[in-house]
Amino acid sequence: MMEERLKALLEDLRSGRVSTEEALERLKALPFEDIGFARIDHHRAIRRGFPEVVLCRGKTPEQVVEIARRMVERGSFLATKADREVAEAVRKVLPDVEYHPEAEVLVWKGPDFRRRPGTAAVVSGGSSDIRVAEEAAVTIEAMGHSAERLYDVGVAGIHRLLANWELLRRVDVLVVVAGMEGALPSVVGGLVEAPVIAVPTSVGYGASFGGLAALLAMLNSCVPGVMVVNIDNGFGAGYAASLVLRRCEKVKSGG
Amino acid sequence: MMEERLKALLEDLRSGRVSTEEALERLKALPFEDIGFARIDHHRAIRRGFPEVVLCRGKTPEQVVEIARRMVERGSFLATKADREVAEAVRKVLPDVEYHPEAEVLVWKGPDFRRRPGTAAVVSGGSSDIRVAEEAAVTIEAMGHSAERLYDVGVAGIHRLLANWELLRRVDVLVVVAGMEGALPSVVGGLVEAPVIAVPTSVGYGASFGGLAALLAMLNSCVPGVMVVNIDNGFGAGYAASLVLRRCEKVKSGG
Amino acid sequence: MMEERLKALLEDLRSGRVSTEEALERLKALPFEDIGFARIDHHRAIRRGFPEVVLCRGKTPEQVVEIARRMVERGSFLATKADREVAEAVRKVLPDVEYHPEAEVLVWKGPDFRRRPGTAAVVSGGSSDIRVAEEAAVTIEAMGHSAERLYDVGVAGIHRLLANWELLRRVDVLVVVAGMEGALPSVVGGLVEAPVIAVPTSVGYGASFGGLAALLAMLNSCVPGVMVVNIDNGFGAGYAASLVLRRCEKVKSGG
Amino acid sequence: MMEERLKALLEDLRSGRVSTEEALERLKALPFEDIGFARIDHHRAIRRGFPEVVLCRGKTPEQVVEIARRMVERGSFLATKADREVAEAVRKVLPDVEYHPEAEVLVWKGPDFRRRPGTAAVVSGGSSDIRVAEEAAVTIEAMGHSAERLYDVGVAGIHRLLANWELLRRVDVLVVVAGMEGALPSVVGGLVEAPVIAVPTSVGYGASFGGLAALLAMLNSCVPGVMVVNIDNGFGAGYAASLVLRRCEKVKSGG
Amino acid sequence: MMEERLKALLEDLRSGRVSTEEALERLKALPFEDIGFARIDHHRAIRRGFPEVVLCRGKTPEQVVEIARRMVERGSFLATKADREVAEAVRKVLPDVEYHPEAEVLVWKGPDFRRRPGTAAVVSGGSSDIRVAEEAAVTIEAMGHSAERLYDVGVAGIHRLLANWELLRRVDVLVVVAGMEGALPSVVGGLVEAPVIAVPTSVGYGASFGGLAALLAMLNSCVPGVMVVNIDNGFGAGYAASLVLRRCEKVKSGG
Amino acid sequence: MMEERLKALLEDLRSGRVSTEEALERLKALPFEDIGFARIDHHRAIRRGFPEVVLCRGKTPEQVVEIARRMVERGSFLATKADREVAEAVRKVLPDVEYHPEAEVLVWKGPDFRRRPGTAAVVSGGSSDIRVAEEAAVTIEAMGHSAERLYDVGVAGIHRLLANWELLRRVDVLVVVAGMEGALPSVVGGLVEAPVIAVPTSVGYGASFGGLAALLAMLNSCVPGVMVVNIDNGFGAGYAASLVLRRCEKVKSGG
Amino acid sequence: MMEERLKALLEDLRSGRVSTEEALERLKALPFEDIGFARIDHHRAIRRGFPEVVLCRGKTPEQVVEIARRMVERGSFLATKADREVAEAVRKVLPDVEYHPEAEVLVWKGPDFRRRPGTAAVVSGGSSDIRVAEEAAVTIEAMGHSAERLYDVGVAGIHRLLANWELLRRVDVLVVVAGMEGALPSVVGGLVEAPVIAVPTSVGYGASFGGLAALLAMLNSCVPGVMVVNIDNGFGAGYAASLVLRRCEKVKSGG
Amino acid sequence: MMEERLKALLEDLRSGRVSTEEALERLKALPFEDIGFARIDHHRAIRRGFPEVVLCRGKTPEQVVEIARRMVERGSFLATKADREVAEAVRKVLPDVEYHPEAEVLVWKGPDFRRRPGTAAVVSGGSSDIRVAEEAAVTIEAMGHSAERLYDVGVAGIHRLLANWELLRRVDVLVVVAGMEGALPSVVGGLVEAPVIAVPTSVGYGASFGGLAALLAMLNSCVPGVMVVNIDNGFGAGYAASLVLRRCEKVKSGG
Repeated sequence: MMEERLKALLEDLRSGRVSTEEALERLKALPFEDIGFARIDHHRAIRRGFPEVVLCRGKTPEQVVEIARRMVERGSFLATKADREVAEAVRKVLPDVEYHPEAEVLVWKGPDFRRRPGTAAVVSGGSSDIRVAEEAAVTIEAMGHSAERLYDVGVAGIHRLLANWELLRRVDVLVVVAGMEGALPSVVGGLVEAPVIAVPTSVGYGASFGGLAALLAMLNSCVPGVMVVNIDNGFGAGYAASLVLRRCEKVKSGG
Repeated sequence: MMEERLKALLEDLRSGRVSTEEALERLKALPFEDIGFARIDHHRAIRRGFPEVVLCRGKTPEQVVEIARRMVERGSFLATKADREVAEAVRKVLPDVEYHPEAEVLVWKGPDFRRRPGTAAVVSGGSSDIRVAEEAAVTIEAMGHSAERLYDVGVAGIHRLLANWELLRRVDVLVVVAGMEGALPSVVGGLVEAPVIAVPTSVGYGASFGGLAALLAMLNSCVPGVMVVNIDNGFGAGYAASLVLRRCEKVKSGG
Repeated sequence: MMEERLKALLEDLRSGRVSTEEALERLKALPFEDIGFARIDHHRAIRRGFPEVVLCRGKTPEQVVEIARRMVERGSFLATKADREVAEAVRKVLPDVEYHPEAEVLVWKGPDFRRRPGTAAVVSGGSSDIRVAEEAAVTIEAMGHSAERLYDVGVAGIHRLLANWELLRRVDVLVVVAGMEGALPSVVGGLVEAPVIAVPTSVGYGASFGGLAALLAMLNSCVPGVMVVNIDNGFGAGYAASLVLRRCEKVKSGG
Repeated sequence: MMEERLKALLEDLRSGRVSTEEALERLKALPFEDIGFARIDHHRAIRRGFPEVVLCRGKTPEQVVEIARRMVERGSFLATKADREVAEAVRKVLPDVEYHPEAEVLVWKGPDFRRRPGTAAVVSGGSSDIRVAEEAAVTIEAMGHSAERLYDVGVAGIHRLLANWELLRRVDVLVVVAGMEGALPSVVGGLVEAPVIAVPTSVGYGASFGGLAALLAMLNSCVPGVMVVNIDNGFGAGYAASLVLRRCEKVKSGG
Repeated sequence: MMEERLKALLEDLRSGRVSTEEALERLKALPFEDIGFARIDHHRAIRRGFPEVVLCRGKTPEQVVEIARRMVERGSFLATKADREVAEAVRKVLPDVEYHPEAEVLVWKGPDFRRRPGTAAVVSGGSSDIRVAEEAAVTIEAMGHSAERLYDVGVAGIHRLLANWELLRRVDVLVVVAGMEGALPSVVGGLVEAPVIAVPTSVGYGASFGGLAALLAMLNSCVPGVMVVNIDNGFGAGYAASLVLRRCEKVKSGG
Repeated sequence: MMEERLKALLEDLRSGRVSTEEALERLKALPFEDIGFARIDHHRAIRRGFPEVVLCRGKTPEQVVEIARRMVERGSFLATKADREVAEAVRKVLPDVEYHPEAEVLVWKGPDFRRRPGTAAVVSGGSSDIRVAEEAAVTIEAMGHSAERLYDVGVAGIHRLLANWELLRRVDVLVVVAGMEGALPSVVGGLVEAPVIAVPTSVGYGASFGGLAALLAMLNSCVPGVMVVNIDNGFGAGYAASLVLRRCEKVKSGG
Repeated sequence: MMEERLKALLEDLRSGRVSTEEALERLKALPFEDIGFARIDHHRAIRRGFPEVVLCRGKTPEQVVEIARRMVERGSFLATKADREVAEAVRKVLPDVEYHPEAEVLVWKGPDFRRRPGTAAVVSGGSSDIRVAEEAAVTIEAMGHSAERLYDVGVAGIHRLLANWELLRRVDVLVVVAGMEGALPSVVGGLVEAPVIAVPTSVGYGASFGGLAALLAMLNSCVPGVMVVNIDNGFGAGYAASLVLRRCEKVKSGG
Repeated sequence: MMEERLKALLEDLRSGRVSTEEALERLKALPFEDIGFARIDHHRAIRRGFPEVVLCRGKTPEQVVEIARRMVERGSFLATKADREVAEAVRKVLPDVEYHPEAEVLVWKGPDFRRRPGTAAVVSGGSSDIRVAEEAAVTIEAMGHSAERLYDVGVAGIHRLLANWELLRRVDVLVVVAGMEGALPSVVGGLVEAPVIAVPTSVGYGASFGGLAALLAMLNSCVPGVMVVNIDNGFGAGYAASLVLRRCEKVKSGG
């Protein structure tokens, strides 16, 4: 549409309806991001079914309800860090919104939602890491992809992981969640060809320093190609995994 | 020796010297790992053309030459952190090995090397980051993919980045390299759909703390989906980018 | 020159042109011994309309009310980190005091307050940073200057910032507030000529380490001339911006 | 299911339906991990009387009760970080479970429990460290060994420690618990021949940084052979001490 | 000149020399920052006498000479962290370039250079901080402003500072440089009305941690309005001071 | 009692009831510290009127009451970090115990308490530091010395400090308490000859990191001879000051 | 000699040459540690064949030669961090001393050396860790025990480790050496019953922070019972392993 | 009191009892304005025999020689961190200057030097700490006091320390130097009544983090009254010890 406006302006100039000076002024006045940049991006986001994501932490239930309402009208809704109180407030008004209590995620997939190809594995170590792992898995599913959960396969009992070797090798991308020593992404990364996205968690105490130990371990993985997101950032890892899957889909369809 | 023991057991079963149940029990007692696991994995690595990677730092030129010789016989050779002395030692014996002095990488692509689909952009901020960026780019190319370099487009002059907006949006994966405040991956990540792999560098001084500032900035990116590797780990980022591209190729070809 | 003034005074005393008492008073007025120093400085502060600033954190509502009463008598009152309970206690007694709930600032401008020239822009990234940004903006306004707010223009959507390019370039000083990766001051700093004061916030989690990530990023800005204050120190940034504006005013008026 | 496949293969071999070579090949192709690895390990754990250990932190009383029930059926139960509420819930259902309130440990030793040779000393500095020391001591006792407690013998009064020199030299392994400056393991280590396991605690304030000071001190002990576990990890130290004692027992019995 | 090109294009369109479509294509082909953004900025930089700044660290003498040559042609040259070897190489070719060995700065002011109003004080504590202070002072002078140096007035002898109270209060902006405990900016800031820019230095040892102690002290100044730059960043502080002075000049001239 | 055992042994030897060899063996077996070492120290502590000190944090009111009772019987009682609840519990039973609510210290001086020579100044910056300063001052007074309080003389208004220059120079030892940038001990240390004991406080926010900024500043003081204790450790500083004063007293009296 | 003095005193008492009181006084005056404490310990050390250990770092070759000479006379010599220059200087004078260049250890086992029961495994990840691993292994051997080396079995290729499962389970204690992410001790610890001593190394770069990443990972191991020594402290780990083996031997022999 | 003195002076002037010049001089002599303040302080320093101290690090031999010359003329000279090259340069010109190579200190005591009462013990752990300990001891001696050295009495062999118990208790102040785990000040502090000044050293490796471990340990000492100076700051500790001794002397002499 920007192009149309530009073309119209040029036509006006050409036909003498505006002077050169006026055209110059109007050209300068166009916010440059409007040359197709911001707006197209916004439209595409809606068109492609990528929900905008709301972080509930720091917002009142009323604020989240209000945002949810407007987003549902626009076709999709995904909110993270939604505690039970927020969830109930939203679902009272919008009963179709799903609540994933372990992940603390609210999802409304909308009429344009469709299942998409590509499968991610979400792997986690201890049972305390499941909250973060679920945030990743629910995000991947909200984006339309499949998520295979493989929980409680920490490195203390390596056989549990090896027993699922086939699953690990079958998927297109892996999100590996671990707290404490954060060793799981290295071990998993050594077993697979697909990209591995590591999520350190704040699970632990003492010299875990709120997840710093796991974070540093993952950044120093001896397995090349392990990529890391912020501590407890299950949403970010799930989002990144979906970006990889989408890109593969795009490549597949010649996009 | 494992194989001999297995074979003997099977012969015993076949000849009736042991019962099925007893054979089953004895099989369970065998250490599992020797059943060809490592070997198969190794074969696959060679078959798929993924070069094994040698870290030259901490090795003498003679050692690198010796390793290079054996790897070239097996079909591929990629070595990182190769200074000029090492490079000359290797190229004296193996003149076909390419040396990329800025990246400090040695590559010999071998007869099985082939160009593969998929393009990565390697984007960097200051001119001091180019060394790390080149390590990423050369790694991607050694893996068979294309790398488009976009250097010296730091956030201090955002227009330089925006001027290359089309390139950024066209590629399949992005490696974004930055030192100092490490802001570039966030800005780039806000402009593209493809996955972004961020590489903090140790470029800077004072409160950069050897790249810690850039690392933390990238981990805290407000753009969802930015993934981070270790400080100065251009090789790891390039490898990860190639894993994403390979996966896309695999998906495309129905693999 | 001090010596000359002293000598002249002593001569005046000796010759009877001034009385002992008067000489004593004038001596007291000389910098910078106890007896006159603080007072002079204090008088100037009041004369120039710079309110003294009260930090409410760690004080009871009663204590703040008591301080407020005395300061209002002396002509101005500015208090930061004032929660709703404190605000109500103060306003019950001094209903003319304004409360800015988002900034958690109490202001009473007094009869000597006057609008002064100079405009600061207060720019912030995420909506969680607004609290700190408002503290800066309200401080600037309490000092008599104008503050133009430009919120929610984080680097994840760079076009929102660029769309306000003219505003950014028009103002005399900028306060740029950002949490998480703290990239906004670098991007803004690259677009403007005026001085940029960066405020890291503790917004974020995990490897944000309470604002450390944003702080380090801002200190390492690749844009020369970015200046940084403490994490969440909106007041300090607003105060510094006002110092710059006052200085310009002074220069302008030949001060 | 793995077992069925294996059994069928062996039957085929036995009956001549497959050749030895073919059976060998098919065996190699089986994912190795399912050949009883996990199970055997599990059986051994039960057989040797090592209780599995439950971390109560982050679990509801109901969850702990449920786990306790199942573990008691399987013959042993040890749970750490069990507060009074959890303890009461468990003991309501399983009144034979012992609760050690200072250690916050629940133990049910089961019919197979037996006293084993070997004695550990558990030494601690300040009275605030006793909670962690007790966790170590109760763990050692739950493993069947003897624990001699020597508390409140901090380095500020070195004579209290020296007065117990004989005890320190008599035991087979020592767990030394200390917060603040963490000097106790060095002093103890200089007095004994047996291995010393040091446990830093988070007792302290200010520059203790949650136990970091004690942790670093212990890692830098000038006494060779001091080994360190995580801050406040009394359980881990007790477990490690028991591993040493078991190994000695095994060596003694020619195991 | 960008404006001229735009105007010419619009005239061509208006006069029919180019078609609407062609004009549209050419408009799109203009890098958007060229719509007055980057280039104008560049021109203004030159016009206003702001030299572009070269960081010599990490560049060979030959590279610096080459850059210097081109910049001198364009009218100004400022380079920091220039050691003696670099300086000699540059001055051999460009003998008019001034070298400030203590500051390690190279300056060539060019024909357009002019003295500008506004004075900064550069204050430093120990004699080891002078290197950084000089970098700030020389930068300010290269920008056309005056710099009054007040060195070796550390807080250990507060009278040396107080003796210069009049100077401190007279200037328009202050750059305060200190290593070790970094207390000087707080003391100075308490004495003056003008903005204070604090520069921590890496001078010190042990718990100075490369300047971290001074940096943290300055960020936590109890004097409101103290602004901080990176450790050892004398150039950045001088640049920021000049931005403040320029802004005042602009305000003064009604700009 | 040790002495009695020793004496008996020697008598036995003398009388021929034990042989020299046997006496030698029994001497070796005696725990060496019991040769009067611990006990003498303990007696001396009581004799010299140094109260033993109880840290209330982490103890129940009942526990503190019980300890207080026993210590009062032994002649002195000093307890730190005593909140109001603890204080009331103690004073209900022991009404003669003084409570210093700002310092959170409980003191009972006992019959042997006497005023001793020597005066310490306790100097503090902001009003939030008074809590820690009072802990130091009350400790000094409980030890029998005089404490002159000089509060709210932070470096932001250096004249307040200078106005008390005579006091500062008159005392025998100084405890200087400061949070935020921790600059006060350096400024004070530069003005006096007496030893300076610096106490960093956790007052501050953001990059104060719980008092780390002030701690590092004090350790890096450019004034030689400044000594530092732990963050918020007012008691430790007061105790150290008293040790200095006692030593002077001892020297004076020829001790 | 102490013993002689004691004996003489007792004889004097017995023969009436001194009174009981005088003997008592003289006994008290004896430095108490000399009542056999230090010396016995020293004798035992020699008797048990535990070599005293010399740290060569920071000593001149001449100093090490001198120390070596005296220690060889006393029966044993073990020196760590001995570079080639030191080694050659020692071996020129004492040609029987063995030099282990990879471990940088000098050993002379002496006439009293004897092989002792007990075997440790020394396991390491990358080839750069071998230097530290060898220091541990050579230390164990110098103590008389057997060390089985299992190098280059990092977690990136978990099968290499699993292939040696039998070895891992057979030994009495394990020293596990790893740099980078430090995951190896957790994986090994999950496979064995024997105590595991983890050694982080400084191998790595960037966010390894000189071995901090590996250290934190090991301290946070999810496998109970993993014990940790300082970064690069192969000697300490080998020494600790030997203490465990000795204790087992002592237990075995009824000691 | 200041006011009275001022008034009296003015009256004297008015009544002609003093001349204007004399009044001016007496005004100058009043604390603490520029004109008299520094000088008085300076005179006192010389009068009391406290040498000014030169830090040689960062100065050329020529610069140190020049400073030494001027200071020797003024009566005293003390310089720290003087390496052999500097020492030789100084002693060539000023052969009476003593060089203490281990302490790296240069001293010239001058004609006014006199021995003063008071003895400090300087205690250190490992032999690598002696360098720092000597810096403290030589400083104390240069100030005129006695220093008793007690080296190599680390906590690993506590008996060596206890054997010197009488010495430790006899001195007036103690400087305790230790690297690695920094436990020595706590153990010593528990044995003595005199003030203890702790000096952490950078001796150690790995998790010593350049002396941070020892520093934190000392700050967290469980012995009340331990005071700490910067890492490796032997000079500062010696200076502080001398301040304590001087103060005692002053008290003794009724000063």
